[in-house]
Amino acid sequence: METVSTNLSFGGTQGVYTHQSTSTGTQMTFAVFVPPQAATQSCPVVWYLSGLTCSHANVMDKGEYRRKAAELGLIIVCPDTSPRGDDVANDESWQMGQGAGFYVDATQEPWSKHFQMYSYITQELPALIAENFPADMSRQGITGHSMGGHGALTIALKNPDTFKSCSAFAPITNPSTAEWSKGALTTYLGADQAAWADYDAVRLIEKGAKFPALLVDQGAADNFFDGCNPHALQSACVDTDIALTLRLQEGYDHSYFFISTFMDDHLTWHADRLSK
Amino acid sequence: METVSTNLSFGGTQGVYTHQSTSTGTQMTFAVFVPPQAATQSCPVVWYLSGLTCSHANVMDKGEYRRKAAELGLIIVCPDTSPRGDDVANDESWQMGQGAGFYVDATQEPWSKHFQMYSYITQELPALIAENFPADMSRQGITGHSMGGHGALTIALKNPDTFKSCSAFAPITNPSTAEWSKGALTTYLGADQAAWADYDAVRLIEKGAKFPALLVDQGAADNFFDGCNPHALQSACVDTDIALTLRLQEGYDHSYFFISTFMDDHLTWHADRLSK
Repeated sequence: METVSTNLSFGGTQGVYTHQSTSTGTQMTFAVFVPPQAATQSCPVVWYLSGLTCSHANVMDKGEYRRKAAELGLIIVCPDTSPRGDDVANDESWQMGQGAGFYVDATQEPWSKHFQMYSYITQELPALIAENFPADMSRQGITGHSMGGHGALTIALKNPDTFKSCSAFAPITNPSTAEWSKGALTTYLGADQAAWADYDAVRLIEKGAKFPALLVDQGAADNFFDGCNPHALQSACVDTDIALTLRLQEGYDHSYFFISTFMDDHLTWHADRLSK
Repeated sequence: METVSTNLSFGGTQGVYTHQSTSTGTQMTFAVFVPPQAATQSCPVVWYLSGLTCSHANVMDKGEYRRKAAELGLIIVCPDTSPRGDDVANDESWQMGQGAGFYVDATQEPWSKHFQMYSYITQELPALIAENFPADMSRQGITGHSMGGHGALTIALKNPDTFKSCSAFAPITNPSTAEWSKGALTTYLGADQAAWADYDAVRLIEKGAKFPALLVDQGAADNFFDGCNPHALQSACVDTDIALTLRLQEGYDHSYFFISTFMDDHLTWHADRLSK
C-alpha cells in the first residue's frame, strides 16, 4: 500500500492510498478518513460505496462526512467503483465498464479478468484496512449511493455477520428490473437472470436474506427515482424481520447536495449500532 | 441573469447563475446558497472569495458551508476569481491571468480590458444579488481563502460601511512583498509599487484603514505559509483599533480540508456580527 496524500481535517486524517489488487489485477485507489479518537483506540469502520461514474474522490470532496465522523469516532473507507486502466475492458456507456463495477464478480469475458469488485470490497480491501489502520473490524457498517447503495444493501444482506449496520442513499434496490442496470448485469453476469439474484437487494430479501434494520433516504425529486425503485424494497421488506426506515425527502435530487444533507443522519445511524 | 442549476441542500437552495458583466465585459458565473429562512424574511449575506486557480465551484463542492449557513440563515455568495474566455488575456503561470484576478481593477494593457474584479465584486455583483435574491444588503460580511482572503481583507478595509464582518482563511496579507503575488500586481497595476498599496491589507492598515474585528485562521503546516505571512498582518494591527483574532492551526495545510474544518467558526463569526 502506498500513500498518495494525507491531509489533516476536523482533527483527523483524510488519506488517499493505492495498492496492487489481486482481486482486480489492477492498481486500486481508495480514501480513508481516520478520526482523532484513533490516536488512543481502535475505531469502528463505515464503508461508503460510490455510484456510477464516481471514484473514491467524489464523496471525499463532496460528501461532508468528516465533521460527524470525527465527532463519532468513525473510520470512513471510500473505495473506487471499478478497476481502471488502459488494459481494462470498458464501454462507451456510463452504466457499465470503468466507473461502473456494480460491486459484482463478473463471470463473462472480457469483464471477468478485472471486474471482481465483490471480492475486492468484501475480502481484499478489508484485510488491507485491518492491517494498516487502527480499525476495529468487529464493528463495521456499510452505506453507499445509487449503484453504491445497491452495493451496500447486497453486501450487507449477504454478510450480516460482518456488517452490524447498513444504510443507503437512493440505492438501486432492484437492479434486475431497472433499465439503467440490466445492461451491466447482462454484460458482467450473462443473460440468465438467475445469476443476477445474488446481486439484487429485493431478490435477496425475497429469497430470505436477513438484516436487522436498514435506513434508506430517497430524494422525491430524483430524476432516477424509477431506477432506484424504493417501493420495491419497501414491498420486499413487508412480512420480514427487516426493519426498513425509508424516508422520501421532498424536493431532493440524486446529487451530493442531497447526500451531504443527510450524511450526519446516516453516520449517527451507524454509530448507534457500532458502539460497543 | 440566467440560472445554470439549482439543487435543494440542507433545506436551502444551492444555485449557480451566469450573467453578462459590464465590469469585466465577459460572461461571469457565480454560486449563491439561499437558506430556508429566506422563504419568510430577507437574510444577511456572506461573500466567499476564492483563491488562485479556483472558480465558484471549489468552495461550493468542498467548503461545507451549507449546513451551518442553513442553521444561521445566511445567504452565501461565491463569485468566480477572474474573467474567463478565449478573448480574455491569460498567462501560463497559475499566479496571474484567468483564475487569478486578485480582486483588483487592472490598469495595464492588455489586462485592464477585462480584469476589473474589484469593481465587479464591490459594485456590479452586489447590485445583481440585491435585485434577484432575498438579501438584506445592510447586513453583509466577507471572507475568503488565500488570494480570496486577500480580497476579503482589502475589500472590507476599504468598505467598512458596507461590510459589518470580515474573516479569512490563510489570506495573502501583504501581496506587495510576497513572491507569489508580486508578479500579478506588477502585471495588473504596473511596476510602481505605490499603486499596489490600495490592494494590500497590511499597507492599507499601515495607512490608517479601520475595521472593528478580523478573524484569520492560518494552517501552521501550510506550504504557502510565507506567502500568506500572517505575522505581517498581526504586526500591522498592533496599536490600531482593529481587533485581530489570528489562529495558527497546528498541522493544517492550505487545502479545502483545512477550510471546511473551520468553516463553521467563520460563519458563526459573521452571523454574530450580522444579526440585527
